[in-house]
Amino acid sequence: MIFADRSARLPVLRIVLALVFCVGAVPAALAETTAQDEESRVTRHVLDNGLEIIVIPDHRAPVVTHMLWYKTGSADETPGKSGIAHFFEHLMFKGTTNHGPGEFSRRVAEIGGQENAFTSYDYTAYFQQVTPEALETMMAFEADRMRNLVLSDEVIGPERDVIIEERNSRVENEPGALLGEEVDATLYQNHPYGIPVIGWMHEIEELNRADAIAFYERYYAPNNAVLVVAGDVTAEQVRTLAEATYGKVARGPDLPPRIRPKEPEQNTSRTVTLTDARVTRPSFRKAWVVPSYSTAEPGEAEALDLLSEILGGGVRSRAYETLVVEKGIASSVGAYFQSDALDDTSFEIYGAPRGDATLAEVEAAMDAEISRIVDDGVTEKELAMAKKRYVRSMIFARDSQQGMARIYGATLATGGTIEDIEEWPRRIEAVTAEQVKSAARRYLSPDRSVTGYLLPATEERS
Amino acid sequence: MIFADRSARLPVLRIVLALVFCVGAVPAALAETTAQDEESRVTRHVLDNGLEIIVIPDHRAPVVTHMLWYKTGSADETPGKSGIAHFFEHLMFKGTTNHGPGEFSRRVAEIGGQENAFTSYDYTAYFQQVTPEALETMMAFEADRMRNLVLSDEVIGPERDVIIEERNSRVENEPGALLGEEVDATLYQNHPYGIPVIGWMHEIEELNRADAIAFYERYYAPNNAVLVVAGDVTAEQVRTLAEATYGKVARGPDLPPRIRPKEPEQNTSRTVTLTDARVTRPSFRKAWVVPSYSTAEPGEAEALDLLSEILGGGVRSRAYETLVVEKGIASSVGAYFQSDALDDTSFEIYGAPRGDATLAEVEAAMDAEISRIVDDGVTEKELAMAKKRYVRSMIFARDSQQGMARIYGATLATGGTIEDIEEWPRRIEAVTAEQVKSAARRYLSPDRSVTGYLLPATEERS
Repeated sequence: MIFADRSARLPVLRIVLALVFCVGAVPAALAETTAQDEESRVTRHVLDNGLEIIVIPDHRAPVVTHMLWYKTGSADETPGKSGIAHFFEHLMFKGTTNHGPGEFSRRVAEIGGQENAFTSYDYTAYFQQVTPEALETMMAFEADRMRNLVLSDEVIGPERDVIIEERNSRVENEPGALLGEEVDATLYQNHPYGIPVIGWMHEIEELNRADAIAFYERYYAPNNAVLVVAGDVTAEQVRTLAEATYGKVARGPDLPPRIRPKEPEQNTSRTVTLTDARVTRPSFRKAWVVPSYSTAEPGEAEALDLLSEILGGGVRSRAYETLVVEKGIASSVGAYFQSDALDDTSFEIYGAPRGDATLAEVEAAMDAEISRIVDDGVTEKELAMAKKRYVRSMIFARDSQQGMARIYGATLATGGTIEDIEEWPRRIEAVTAEQVKSAARRYLSPDRSVTGYLLPATEERS
Repeated sequence: MIFADRSARLPVLRIVLALVFCVGAVPAALAETTAQDEESRVTRHVLDNGLEIIVIPDHRAPVVTHMLWYKTGSADETPGKSGIAHFFEHLMFKGTTNHGPGEFSRRVAEIGGQENAFTSYDYTAYFQQVTPEALETMMAFEADRMRNLVLSDEVIGPERDVIIEERNSRVENEPGALLGEEVDATLYQNHPYGIPVIGWMHEIEELNRADAIAFYERYYAPNNAVLVVAGDVTAEQVRTLAEATYGKVARGPDLPPRIRPKEPEQNTSRTVTLTDARVTRPSFRKAWVVPSYSTAEPGEAEALDLLSEILGGGVRSRAYETLVVEKGIASSVGAYFQSDALDDTSFEIYGAPRGDATLAEVEAAMDAEISRIVDDGVTEKELAMAKKRYVRSMIFARDSQQGMARIYGATLATGGTIEDIEEWPRRIEAVTAEQVKSAARRYLSPDRSVTGYLLPATEERS
């Protein structure tokens, strides 16, 4: 199973933006795709029990991606119970009252399909990629485990050990991951995004059957889920199959709006230093709380997206060209914006020195790149190029049925709509250089930043 | 009303420790007090509705202190509702179904009494100091507002504005208080002690009638309260009066154990810098998460108490003698231990430079004082002196009826017992120099500290 932490969520919106350009500013090469028009239109339907169904027709190959998204993630956990959302990413592969443990996975494997699952702060999703003939079977299995999971101590105990081991290997043994957790815990003073998706070790260790049942009863229900089916099927076919499978699942309790504690005003500059003998190369990351697509004023999240692209979005970014290519002081640099969060989210930059350069030099050079944008803004040319890079990467995104399904699922599971996705290209296209400059000025201030340092252990430390 | 934040809670245990020496290692000057023995014994009684009653006889003057402690504080608040516990410190002085707004306070004033209230992370308390004849009236009023408070929008709205103004004057306009909040928010990554007692401004602004009613219904009940009466009364008299007043109040819902999210392992060195034009003199504070009397292994909290005393407990402390007197580099230095918390708590040091000395020099000198204890420990002589200073300050504590009532109330409201208070002197007396050294070594490591810097705004800032 995929453990989808912040960085794993990273590519989603980038793909979203890429994809939607396909609908808006259409390059010539894609003209034949959009000509199919009505037939390839993304549709939405809601079952009587509340299950939202999104169908994305894609007839290039006899393949279908079946994804079920639950509108619950680690930020919905009860305080003190961190890790329970991700725990389900494991438990859902155990037995139900109708099927033995692992039976669903074996069936997927037998028919040559693929499957996986991922958990984020705001959602949890399960998916299979199979041939269209197998879609009904997938739906039947998925609908079954939505309510019939066997959550006994015999299941919970051993799986908790697996998750503890997962945390050991992915976090405890990875100083960079540990630092990331500490930066988030420092950045978010009130909001649950400060708590790791996988959970704090001491809380994972205490998760029990009662916690699992409470979470499952509350959140695993058709009226808290979005079914996304992308592939060689029609909306009508999907609806019929869904009625026959998911349609039989009873509606769960009505859930209150997903209102989490908000951040207070950020007014300090903070640092977090992790010194660890396992670190061989120092590095830093710097984070700010910024609005997400869900919380931003119109145009602001789009400007932050293009800011991250121009500042540190790849080998054409300012940071890469200056620090890596020209000055040769950095081995890695970059910027990213966690755009697809339900609540205010983070914008981060990072870097590591190369050769004789010091970490302080790299950090200062990155800070200088930000100051340059804050003071002088970005050029029309680089803004246009940044927008164009989104368009180019769209071609690859369009090729991925899974990518499309993820875009729609992530958007719908965090309160967005199909229209939001369709309007994105126009909103990105409309961003001005002034908006990029003003987003940098407003949000990337040192007075509200958290800088994390990962340092090798040295002997002279006190 | 008193807004009791961390620093306001500070003196309590110090007084506790002081007082209890009175019972244990008794100085000659107090011999006549302890001779009264049976008559001055502190007693405990529980009413049928769950109200716990502690009586502390004190017949020196015809005065009685009547304190009602609720076992709920800001750390018991629902996430996103910070400030609601402290809100009650205001609301409780409004009207009930039986008495108009301010009527209770007017009555106290008319009879020449004093009253006040305070809120902490773990408890909220209300008290009056009056003549013994007025005790029954106080009990009747206090029992009345335990359940009959009028929580209408007309009451909530204006009082919320008062609290917003209180936060403005005490926090927003006090850079030192702002920094304190930010240090706590950084220090506590998971536990609600990271959230200010008064509440985040943006959350206070949203508190409403429904929040108030939910909190009141849940926590304001006899079975979640401790009545402490100190003064010129007998246990029998108090019991009779309490039965006739509080005894009529119905028991509230059974509350689950007060289990809050625990801190993950602390493994980073963090800094928080607040630069503010209102700051004229720079200062720093450094904090660590340490066990409290409630959570510590036997002897550890006692050792931390003596460590804070030896390191920075006053003008006889190492920090004061070295930094202020000998080197003359600091205008203020100190250390304190928030010992009386229900959960793991904080140990802090602080300092500010004097003359030409820099903040960095003062911080380094304080760090050096800690290193000296970590490496070389403390002397038997200074340990004995530190213990003796507690004994001396006891004499003043004993003089304060309110001080005694606070000690018992705070202890009982955070899960302690009368016996805990009585045994304290022996436990303090038993602390060895090795225990003090090892507490410093175990907890005061730079690798798990948070340092806050309060800096004047300067022009060259980026």
